[in-house]
This record gives sequence, structure tokens and C-alpha cells, in this order.
Amino acid sequence: MIDVQSQKDQRGISIQKVGIKDLNWPIVVMDRENKTQTTIAKIIAAAELKGDIRGTHMSRFIEAIDELKVVGPKEIEKLLDRIKEKLNSEKAYIRFDFPYFINKRTPVTATLSPLKVDCYFEAEKDQKFDLKVGVIVPVHTLCPCSKEISEYGAHNQRAYVTIEVRMKKFMWIEELVEIAEASASCPLYSILKRPDEKWVTERAYQNPRFVEDLLREVVLKMKEDGRIKWYKVFVESIESIHNHNAFAYIEGEITK
Amino acid sequence: MIDVQSQKDQRGISIQKVGIKDLNWPIVVMDRENKTQTTIAKIIAAAELKGDIRGTHMSRFIEAIDELKVVGPKEIEKLLDRIKEKLNSEKAYIRFDFPYFINKRTPVTATLSPLKVDCYFEAEKDQKFDLKVGVIVPVHTLCPCSKEISEYGAHNQRAYVTIEVRMKKFMWIEELVEIAEASASCPLYSILKRPDEKWVTERAYQNPRFVEDLLREVVLKMKEDGRIKWYKVFVESIESIHNHNAFAYIEGEITK
Amino acid sequence: MIDVQSQKDQRGISIQKVGIKDLNWPIVVMDRENKTQTTIAKIIAAAELKGDIRGTHMSRFIEAIDELKVVGPKEIEKLLDRIKEKLNSEKAYIRFDFPYFINKRTPVTATLSPLKVDCYFEAEKDQKFDLKVGVIVPVHTLCPCSKEISEYGAHNQRAYVTIEVRMKKFMWIEELVEIAEASASCPLYSILKRPDEKWVTERAYQNPRFVEDLLREVVLKMKEDGRIKWYKVFVESIESIHNHNAFAYIEGEITK
Amino acid sequence: MIDVQSQKDQRGISIQKVGIKDLNWPIVVMDRENKTQTTIAKIIAAAELKGDIRGTHMSRFIEAIDELKVVGPKEIEKLLDRIKEKLNSEKAYIRFDFPYFINKRTPVTATLSPLKVDCYFEAEKDQKFDLKVGVIVPVHTLCPCSKEISEYGAHNQRAYVTIEVRMKKFMWIEELVEIAEASASCPLYSILKRPDEKWVTERAYQNPRFVEDLLREVVLKMKEDGRIKWYKVFVESIESIHNHNAFAYIEGEITK
Repeated sequence: MIDVQSQKDQRGISIQKVGIKDLNWPIVVMDRENKTQTTIAKIIAAAELKGDIRGTHMSRFIEAIDELKVVGPKEIEKLLDRIKEKLNSEKAYIRFDFPYFINKRTPVTATLSPLKVDCYFEAEKDQKFDLKVGVIVPVHTLCPCSKEISEYGAHNQRAYVTIEVRMKKFMWIEELVEIAEASASCPLYSILKRPDEKWVTERAYQNPRFVEDLLREVVLKMKEDGRIKWYKVFVESIESIHNHNAFAYIEGEITK
Repeated sequence: MIDVQSQKDQRGISIQKVGIKDLNWPIVVMDRENKTQTTIAKIIAAAELKGDIRGTHMSRFIEAIDELKVVGPKEIEKLLDRIKEKLNSEKAYIRFDFPYFINKRTPVTATLSPLKVDCYFEAEKDQKFDLKVGVIVPVHTLCPCSKEISEYGAHNQRAYVTIEVRMKKFMWIEELVEIAEASASCPLYSILKRPDEKWVTERAYQNPRFVEDLLREVVLKMKEDGRIKWYKVFVESIESIHNHNAFAYIEGEITK
Repeated sequence: MIDVQSQKDQRGISIQKVGIKDLNWPIVVMDRENKTQTTIAKIIAAAELKGDIRGTHMSRFIEAIDELKVVGPKEIEKLLDRIKEKLNSEKAYIRFDFPYFINKRTPVTATLSPLKVDCYFEAEKDQKFDLKVGVIVPVHTLCPCSKEISEYGAHNQRAYVTIEVRMKKFMWIEELVEIAEASASCPLYSILKRPDEKWVTERAYQNPRFVEDLLREVVLKMKEDGRIKWYKVFVESIESIHNHNAFAYIEGEITK
Repeated sequence: MIDVQSQKDQRGISIQKVGIKDLNWPIVVMDRENKTQTTIAKIIAAAELKGDIRGTHMSRFIEAIDELKVVGPKEIEKLLDRIKEKLNSEKAYIRFDFPYFINKRTPVTATLSPLKVDCYFEAEKDQKFDLKVGVIVPVHTLCPCSKEISEYGAHNQRAYVTIEVRMKKFMWIEELVEIAEASASCPLYSILKRPDEKWVTERAYQNPRFVEDLLREVVLKMKEDGRIKWYKVFVESIESIHNHNAFAYIEGEITK
């Protein structure tokens, strides 16, 4: 059977990424409390394509993915090696987007319930392996301006903090989530009994945060941590007094 | 050229709706302040298909839509008549989903800005013409429980009120939006200067609403109005203390 | 601490559904091949609220959900009973939307790979328990008209078949998926080696299907099956020659 | 009234972008055939925030946007200047995402109908003004491998070509769309009469394109054009034989 993809291409245009997108696939990731957690990823996988070859063999990405064991840094690097080999390419790319559940106890009644945090791993390898880990953490923000200028109350809302890092040393997803939660007006919980609701309401009121404040607190905590060498932070709040959102964005390196 | 769609079908299964979906199309709708407003609709159009005919001629829906003038009740009925005729069908269906802008003045500084409200028209005609008008209004809700049990503050959030009605007498989109806004803890604005922000913060605090309260206030106002014969109300609030939403739903007739 | 939700309400408006929406939660469902499958659901849970009570205790839905074991018909009914009891309501509602993976072998090389199918369970209970099971199956459709009128080729595309049923007797998710796949021009696979790709291309060309054809084939197969008492079928194809979709919709009972 | 945003900030962290997101706003853009076109944008607007200031005055973005006239390169630069001035910032950012309609005649019957193309303008200004224009063009792709290895037929599907450019000289949105359409197996149309459908079916069959082919054809045409200095091309096809997509991505400069 003819291999059309392997035909010579005369156009001489190398393509940086060719591959598959929005492949849904069950995966197992590392979990600080329970060792592993089963979840479902949306996957993008790609390889570089040289300028003189017509096409990529898309099914080989899935064969490479099919051999995956527990998805952690080493396993991701091995996957990229497999893609490079199977696709005969010098550079491979992978991205996993997946929901991750963290069991949290509420502040007063200590009721336990899982909170969903969307996470992602994004990695590339040519000679060097480069991995970024991202978490998108739902939190609560209360507006400092609204509190200050009003006689009572203050507008507040759900917000999402995206923290994306390159690490010097391994960190758990849970640790990145804790940085986001500790920087917000208050963390979120799936279940809140009335004494908990009183606590989170008052805690947020005592702890107002602009998106700018929240972002800066995250950056300070990451600098203190010592295990992060590069970061991107994106905070988006679903403003409760507008029909649009507020956001803040920063990207930087931690050199010391 | 063979007309495959018009072939006889032996399976004898009438299909209630066959048509096109997610067609994007520029339309003009009626506007209380400015007579008309240009917007962009996502359209679903369908017709009933008899059990002995194989298929529908999909391009004819678009020809029927292409003749549309300003989209109001009469124009929608004419469109359904055209679909019935062109498709040789006894029943036709149409749905327009579109963003609609309302210019609003803020409560203190009277600053003018447009607020986007998603709207829809959904209609059917066999012998009888049936039209439903829907608005999805962004508002602010402040939790009565959180306010009551906390020493200061109260969690609040953006919420969306969907009001869908069958009318006895014509009502403007703006009037349905006003019912939703008057029932909430506070309306939303695209722009708020500081004195406005103080006003909306305090107004919401003085005016707490569960999703249940908001829904009931909408129903009371609709009953008073006198022009509505059937309604569906769906309130969804983006709970600021949880990573899930709260909602309330009701459907009913107004007979008197 | 005051219980604001339990206050008397003077407005006298009963609300059909009050509850929580878009709660993400890990669940275990029944799997024909492997007994059980771990997945992640998006959950809506609600209860009826009497006209003289102000609000619902939202956290109790989550307590009820937290006791869930393997999600099947009996377990869903028990969950609704718990909700009715905990919420002191006469009617409870639940909906689970979740991805489900089915391992499939390709037609020629027999390569095994998982295919994601979105599924849902929707149930209500007052005195009577009512359960609907839905599957949204990705398939391939090839246009009979395009094939007939063209000298070579025929436009084809991915389509989604939603089958929703009330059952007289238990059916596996896999069986509903098989009905959808057998009714299409060709099933889909996550991985296809070249001999498989040849097979699916030719199979689809020999087996053209309008959305109307596909829908009718599904209905015929459901009628033959004998275990279904009510159905809703919705077919939507991502037309490859248009920037909008085609669809067909039917709802009916099987009385014999 | 206290200006909390203008307070001194001790954390010393400059933020690259602070602003508003998902603001829906009616805009007017330039149209090659009709001079202007009214559409609805989703807007992101941001400014850089110095390390010693606590927050941004979000309402000023909207005041700056409110003065917009017909949105073209010069008007966008003026908007960024206004944002810099009103926000007292050294760098401003804006992004408009909007649907744009192009009237197209079908190849055989010359039937006229509008096709929706999603477009965006993304711009920044510190000292230098930098503008990128993007179009997301729906097209048809037919698989060369499937055609070659099969006795009849070939799988095909809808695909989306994103072309994003920095220009040396002005180009119309319509011209970027034409580059995408000329590179695909066949363009799309909202309406197709049967002789047109025959034409597009056969045209696609004679003109097979991998995502890699389509991307390379776009790059060749952009290089020939002479008005583009930088580009990003992203092609994504909704594979009709899989439940995932295929994609190709390239970014590059045109120096000559």
C-alpha cells in the first residue's frame, strides 16, 4: 500500500508542529495523598516535520500515547522520546489537560469534600527536555475598593488563578494549588455548612484582593519557595458587578 | 440531475425536525430606543419530514432566511410560512440566538454604556403560530444567609436570569430585561465610576436574594404585568464560595 | 445560627427545581467489559421547593452525592430518595454527564484503542422513579446526494448521534453505542492503520447516509430491540461543505 | 472618596498586563465591498502596571473603547494611546475577536450568500505600535492518503485555517481569507444548489490536501504576496474518521 505521507515534498517548508488535538484519553497521574489518581485528559501531541517530507503518520502518536504509565515528569520525557522515534522527528511536543480532584476539609466543621482543579502538563523535547506544569485554581476575591468606599458590604466573586511553572525541583500539584489559595481572599470548597459559610464570608471581607494583589501574592510565594525557575500567572475574576471579567497577567524568571 | 432527497422512503418514519443548525447570519431586530439594532444570530431552522420522503433540501432554509427583513413576530411567522412552502412541509421551526445591547445609565454618575444581553426567538408553525421570546440577563445576587450569619460582609456573585415567555400582547426585550434586573440584588453595568460602585455595593447588601428569591420576584412581576400567558424562568448564579453554581427553575401559565 | 432558608415565604410560589449545577465529581459507572469504569461527571441535582419555604439547603445535595457507590439505575434511585429525605422535598432530580471509554478493535488490523463517548443519566423521582439514559456517539456520514450527482468522491464528515432512552429492560451503554454505529456510514476509531483507513473509506462510500437516514436506521433498530419504551434521537453532522451543521430530531414511544 | 487603586504598593512587582476581558461591544470594521460592516466584538484591553502602584482603574478602559470609530489600524493605535494616557501607563494592549461576513458566489449557479469568518485584531503599543491581524477560515480538506489507498471515495471534512500576520502594507481581511480558501481542497459556502454541490465534491476529490499541504500552500502564497512580514498559520481539521482532530502549526518571518 502506498505511503503517501512519506513522499518527497518539493515545497521545502519545515513545519514546527504537526499532530493530533483533542484526543480524549484516560490517564493516571501522581497524587500527593493517594499516590495516584485516575482522570481523563484532552491531549495534543505533535512532532516537527522536515521540509522535504510530505506528511506525518498520525496514528503513531496514539500508539506512543497508548504505552503511557503513570504520567509524571520522567514518563512524559519517555513519551516524547517514543514520539521522536516512531515519527522519525527531531522534536516532539505533548500537552495534557485534565481535571484533578483534591480532598479538602472546611475551616470550621472540617467537612471533607473534593474540589476540582483543572491542570495541564505541557512538554517539548529536541535535545533538551522542557516541562511546564499548570494549575487553574478556583478561588474567591473580594474587592478592596468596593469595601473601602462602601458603608457596608463589598462586591466579591469567583476567580480563577492559573499558575504555570518550570521547576528546578519537583513540586506536587497540591502545592501549586495551595499557593493560589493562600493568595486569594479565601479558598473555595464544594461543601460548606453554615459555620463554614460564616467563616469564609468574614475571612474574605477581612482579606480583600484585587486581581493585581492576588497575582503579586502568588509571585511572592513562588519566589520564596525556591523550587521554581520560571512562571506565568494569570488571574481572571468573574466580576460580580459587571458582565465582563477583570484579569492580570505576568511572566518571569526566578534566577537566584 | 437526480434529486436523491425526493426519493420515496420505505421506512415510514416521519421526522419531527430536519434542518440546519449553527448558521451564523447578520440580522436586524427591533429596538425600543433606536427602532432597529443590527446583530448576528446563530440560527436553527427545521421542517417536519413525512415518513415516505427520503430527505430535506437543506439549501432552501437558507433561501427562506435570506429574504428576512427586520426580525419581529410577523416577520418570523412569514419566514415559517416560506419554509413550509419551499420545503413542502406542514410544520416549520426556527430559532434565533443573538446578542442584544441595551444602553444603560449608571445610578449615580449617570454614565451611559451598553450592556450585552443574550436573547432568543423560538417559533413553530403548523396551522397555529407559536412564538417564545427569551432573554438571558446578567445580574448581581447577594446571599441572604451569608449576610445574616456573618458579622460583616456577605458573599455575592454574578448570576444569569433566563426569562422565556409566550405573550398575549407585545413586549419589548427591554421590558423583560427590566423585570429580571428589578428582581435581582442589583443590576449590572459595563462601566461604573467610584460613586456608582459604592451605590451598587450598598444596594446589593440591602437587597439580598437567593436564586429562589430572584426567581419568585420575577414570577410575581410577570403575573402583574398582564401581557404574558406562559413563562419559563431559570436563574443560575456563579456561586463565589463554591466551584459549582446554584440554580432555580420554574415553568407556568398565567391564566387570568 | 439562624436558618434563613427555612424561613416562611409569603409569596406562595412553588419552585419545580432548586439545586446545584456544574458540580464536577469523580464517579464509577458500570462497564460491560470491565465491570466498572472510573470517570468524572458534571452533575446537576435539584429538588422541588414548596411555596411557603424560602430556600433550599444546597450543601445537602452534595452530602447525598457523597454517599454514591457504583452509579447504576438502583443507585440513582437511592440517591434521589436521599435527596428527598435530606431536603424534605417530594420530588428530586439528578443529571450526570460523563465521558465513557469503549475499547474497540479496528476492522482490518484489529488494533485496539479506546473511543470516548459522552453519556448522561437523567432521573427524577416523586412517587415514581423515571430514568433516561443518553449516549452521544461520534460517527461518520457520507452524503448520498453528493455521491449520486458527482462523477467521483462524495462529501463526508464527522457526525454525532444522541440516543436517549427510557428502558423496559436493562441495556448497556455499549449496546446503545452499537445501535448508533451500525446506523451510520461508518463507525469511528481512535487509531487506524492504513489497511483500516482503506476499509473505512470504502465502507462509508458504499454506505451513504443523510442525517435523516441515520436517524431512521437508529429508530428501526430500537424498535426491533424490544427493551426500549421511549426514545429521543438527535443527529447532528458537521457538514464538510458548509460552515453550519445539518440535523434531524425525533421523539417517540415504542408501545408494542 | 478614597482611591484605593492609586495607593503605593510595597511589593515592587510590575505587572505586564492588567485589564478587562470578555467585554462584548458593538464595533464597525472596514469591509472591502461595502466600506464598513457592523459587528460585535469580544474585547480584551490591558495596560502595564508599575511595581509601586496597587491597582488599575478598570472603568477607564471602557471609556477609551467608547470613543472608538471605524476599527482599522490607525484607530487601534489611537485607542492604545488613549489607554496609555487615561491609565497613565507606558504600555497598552488590545484584542478584538469578532465575526465577519463575506458575501460569496457559488461556483456554478453563482448564488450569493454570506459566509461567517471569525477574525481578530491584536495590538500593543509602548513606543512602537505592533498590530497582528488574524482570520479563522472554515474550509474543506480531502485526505490524499485515503484517496490514494482506496478504490473509491476519500474521507474529507471541515477544517479551520487560522492565518495571523503582521503586515508591511495594508491587506483586506478578504485577501487573507482568499489565501486560505485557495490553499484548501475546496472553499465553503452557506448555500449550495445541486450543480454547486457536484462541483465542490469533484473539486475536493481532484484537490486532496493534508493539513500539512494546506499549511504549506498558505505559506507559499503569503511569501509571494509581498505585503506580509511575519505570520503564524494554524490548520485544524475535524477528522471525519476519528473523534479527534489533526493539526499543523508554523510561525515565521518573511525577510525579503
